[in-house]
Amino acid sequence: MTFFDYPSKLLENAVNEFASLPGIGKKTAFRLVMHLLRQSESDVERFGENIVKLKKEVKYCKNCFNISDNDICDICSDKSRDRTIVCIVENISDVIAIENTRQYRGLYHVLGGIISPMDGIGPSDLNIDQLEEKVKKGGIEEVIFALSATMEGDTTNYYIYKRLLQYNIRITSLSRGVAIGDELEYTDEITLGRSIINRTPFDNQK
Amino acid sequence: MTFFDYPSKLLENAVNEFASLPGIGKKTAFRLVMHLLRQSESDVERFGENIVKLKKEVKYCKNCFNISDNDICDICSDKSRDRTIVCIVENISDVIAIENTRQYRGLYHVLGGIISPMDGIGPSDLNIDQLEEKVKKGGIEEVIFALSATMEGDTTNYYIYKRLLQYNIRITSLSRGVAIGDELEYTDEITLGRSIINRTPFDNQK
Repeated sequence: MTFFDYPSKLLENAVNEFASLPGIGKKTAFRLVMHLLRQSESDVERFGENIVKLKKEVKYCKNCFNISDNDICDICSDKSRDRTIVCIVENISDVIAIENTRQYRGLYHVLGGIISPMDGIGPSDLNIDQLEEKVKKGGIEEVIFALSATMEGDTTNYYIYKRLLQYNIRITSLSRGVAIGDELEYTDEITLGRSIINRTPFDNQK
Repeated sequence: MTFFDYPSKLLENAVNEFASLPGIGKKTAFRLVMHLLRQSESDVERFGENIVKLKKEVKYCKNCFNISDNDICDICSDKSRDRTIVCIVENISDVIAIENTRQYRGLYHVLGGIISPMDGIGPSDLNIDQLEEKVKKGGIEEVIFALSATMEGDTTNYYIYKRLLQYNIRITSLSRGVAIGDELEYTDEITLGRSIINRTPFDNQK
């Protein structure tokens, strides 16, 4: 059904707000608004407040540009983490994804995007200067590229690689290969090809 | 991925608010919050305001209990509509759904739910007294039952039917049958059986 006429302007405004979110159509938006209408006034107020508060008060870590409640995020201020390794990611979701693996104990550097001429995003729009600054200062021994395995990701990797080449650090990249749980016959040939070339000693695989 | 640790309490609160909505998991909630973070502060404020405002300022029509910006909704105050017919629906979404068919020119009466002993909803929780009041006052010639075709809907229909039986009005119900576009072999037997019993003259079907 298409909504051509809402019985209330207030309702229409609220539905339109939700429908402006990615992946939420008018129908879902209406269902969400109806759900909120059934909640208590204080619950709905808290809903609105928490969202506006995030936008108003959120900070970004001065060191790694991760989202944070303080000037320096919890990861950067954690003394037990390895400060000689920096993992370069596109955005905050990637930090969370890698943290969730519980396999990484170094620091991060959030670029805030990847180079994408189609979207008008160039190197100067990203936190690349700050990364070079950090590497130049010394103390970092390894930089790990953990950008998306797309053309844009590879372009960004290569651009940063060229800028960091002059410093005496190890530059690595996430391994590419067949995802765990994937069936070979459905794996695309480029991934499969790379995973043959970069095959690892069998006793590395737990 | 499961989020066991957010880099920011503000972020966590905002994600939890969205994840409390029906059909939205933590992952989607996170994506929505990230989208809002990319919007301007005034856009996010408007988002929050529009939702809180709806809850605080919304009114329900004193006549039909439809959602409304005024004491009497646009439908009830529309002089061109037929005041002798009242269509009984469960909630506001049903009003919108029927309005969207553009086939109905009478008024509505929103029950605010259906009788459901399992959920602890009895007749007194619904706007049934107000309906009887309206019918008693006179002027209504037909009441149309447009509740869901479920056991609860049927129970509610029957309960209201018994209360309205004493008044001199026509009581009708939405027709049940094979949905337009449905294939016969996939139609359940109860619906199909009903649609044979209640078959209509062929020239009724446009």
